[in-house]
Amino acid sequence: FQAEDGIRDQPRSRGLGDVYKRQLIYNVRGEFTACEPLDMTYTSLEEIYRIEVVGAFAAARTVLPAMMKRSRGSIFFSSATAAYRGSRTHPLYAIGKFGLRALSQSLTKAYAEYGVHIVHVRLDCDLDAPYMREIYGEKYEPETLASPDDVAESYWLTHLQPRSAWSNEIELRPYTEVWTY
Amino acid sequence: FQAEDGIRDQPRSRGLGDVYKRQLIYNVRGEFTACEPLDMTYTSLEEIYRIEVVGAFAAARTVLPAMMKRSRGSIFFSSATAAYRGSRTHPLYAIGKFGLRALSQSLTKAYAEYGVHIVHVRLDCDLDAPYMREIYGEKYEPETLASPDDVAESYWLTHLQPRSAWSNEIELRPYTEVWTY
Amino acid sequence: FQAEDGIRDQPRSRGLGDVYKRQLIYNVRGEFTACEPLDMTYTSLEEIYRIEVVGAFAAARTVLPAMMKRSRGSIFFSSATAAYRGSRTHPLYAIGKFGLRALSQSLTKAYAEYGVHIVHVRLDCDLDAPYMREIYGEKYEPETLASPDDVAESYWLTHLQPRSAWSNEIELRPYTEVWTY
Amino acid sequence: FQAEDGIRDQPRSRGLGDVYKRQLIYNVRGEFTACEPLDMTYTSLEEIYRIEVVGAFAAARTVLPAMMKRSRGSIFFSSATAAYRGSRTHPLYAIGKFGLRALSQSLTKAYAEYGVHIVHVRLDCDLDAPYMREIYGEKYEPETLASPDDVAESYWLTHLQPRSAWSNEIELRPYTEVWTY
Repeated sequence: FQAEDGIRDQPRSRGLGDVYKRQLIYNVRGEFTACEPLDMTYTSLEEIYRIEVVGAFAAARTVLPAMMKRSRGSIFFSSATAAYRGSRTHPLYAIGKFGLRALSQSLTKAYAEYGVHIVHVRLDCDLDAPYMREIYGEKYEPETLASPDDVAESYWLTHLQPRSAWSNEIELRPYTEVWTY
Repeated sequence: FQAEDGIRDQPRSRGLGDVYKRQLIYNVRGEFTACEPLDMTYTSLEEIYRIEVVGAFAAARTVLPAMMKRSRGSIFFSSATAAYRGSRTHPLYAIGKFGLRALSQSLTKAYAEYGVHIVHVRLDCDLDAPYMREIYGEKYEPETLASPDDVAESYWLTHLQPRSAWSNEIELRPYTEVWTY
Repeated sequence: FQAEDGIRDQPRSRGLGDVYKRQLIYNVRGEFTACEPLDMTYTSLEEIYRIEVVGAFAAARTVLPAMMKRSRGSIFFSSATAAYRGSRTHPLYAIGKFGLRALSQSLTKAYAEYGVHIVHVRLDCDLDAPYMREIYGEKYEPETLASPDDVAESYWLTHLQPRSAWSNEIELRPYTEVWTY
Repeated sequence: FQAEDGIRDQPRSRGLGDVYKRQLIYNVRGEFTACEPLDMTYTSLEEIYRIEVVGAFAAARTVLPAMMKRSRGSIFFSSATAAYRGSRTHPLYAIGKFGLRALSQSLTKAYAEYGVHIVHVRLDCDLDAPYMREIYGEKYEPETLASPDDVAESYWLTHLQPRSAWSNEIELRPYTEVWTY
């Protein structure tokens, strides 16, 4: 495994997303390749865990002590509906996102009292990003996708929540989304 | 039962909360009296349902068509952690809030596509209101309670979410809250 | 409302299902008519609540004290996935089943310690019953439905659970079911 | 990481639990040491994942193809309430059990249709095992714990469920358990 070494040796920028003094957004995702459960390799199980859980922990650990000292700051973990249900076609993604949610809940239960706002964001939709437009092709309909600007705005609004009325787990979806759970 | 008559005959202000052109906040609660399940009366089962579910529906029905026509507006249902788990001491409250959550989800699944933002707000805390201060007495610690102003602010911030990145179910709690679920 | 009178006056068999000394199965369901949320009438809201929640409570109240006295007995509430998520097409069913689940959880949290086993059964499937065969018509495939005999068997097996290892909420579905949540 | 090598090289008995032709019970748990989230090491994150998720997958992969071929067999993953909520004191346990649940759901969604019964068992209690008796000391009360024999019996009863009425996620707790979620 040697995650410790791996993370020490690799450039920080890989796992950390944008780090500001006031906000950390952990917005990393691996390949989203379909794969049935019995075809998962040990290597792929390792990779998804490194990206979704170990990387998120490494990022949080970098900024959390300073935030706790100053009693301010927000940490957002970008997640998905996959954090709430397993998948016959994308089991790795589900395993990673379940773990990320457990991490996020554990961190906030332990450190919210220091004044740090930690949020697990379940994006229940596809994003209107270039690679999604390619995938959709002729079926591309912007109204059915979340605009990255709008997602950023909703993160920002959550960051502005006063600390006696915080959300720790939110879901974001377009008004057009047909959702089951 | 005759909820229809009852609601027609009673002053609207009882069940509606503050109604604006752009926002409806259904913020009604009955008595929060402890009562073990076998001591629930049919009358109390009726009352909690009228307040939490039928009243919320009546309020939503009053404003929803106009909001749908204009493709704007937000409806907030103030709820509680009781919407997520039954209770040996406050079963009526749980039965009412479970029903309210089912109503809120059903409404948003049906009408969000018209551009109306419907939100079930789980308040996972006590409010720093006069009657709570009385109940707490000497144990009153404002830092452990949600300030009504802060709660209103978090409602407002949710109202500002752009419609491609909406929340339909949020939780609000103070940064000091020790929460289990 | 006058549920009390209503229930007193009507033949017990309507709301109670089969009552044995050892087991109560509350297995009642109203019409399962599609209806969008804004078309719900106050009468239909009343009816679903009477059937799903008030009726279930009335049934449980009839048998629970004797079961508690003898420290044995099981109560099963037949429910559905609708107890876990709202619906744009069947909101009444969801409102009723959410309430039933709140009731079931509240009862077991209060009275399990007396040795009574209370179970909310989420049937995540259609049943292979005559009226379903009619609805499916040519598309009828028995392997995709739950056999009523098999469901009864799984209830029975749950009834046999020893009391230091009880389930209070179970789901039942055919092995062929494609489930999301 | 090299889980592949690790698992190849180590004696099978470490990760597999008891393997029968008809049933696999993956019943492994690491140390249950308290540790606040910021004190988690990368090594401990690796270990918990290996035990709870990679090990469970390795065990399932060993027996699943033969079970699918014969259209029979049950796989039980012993889990805990920690699979449903993060923890300020035992974050590693939560991260592992969340991942295990994602794995279990993914496997059953993919392979139940072949006639293999896969079950995630949430043990919502402590077990009446020798090491728990030590921990409880004078406060030991057998009625508040799950008897291992009773747990095994409830596993067995679940194994007996007919395949048109299967549970894929069950919870087991003593009748005396005071549970929140």
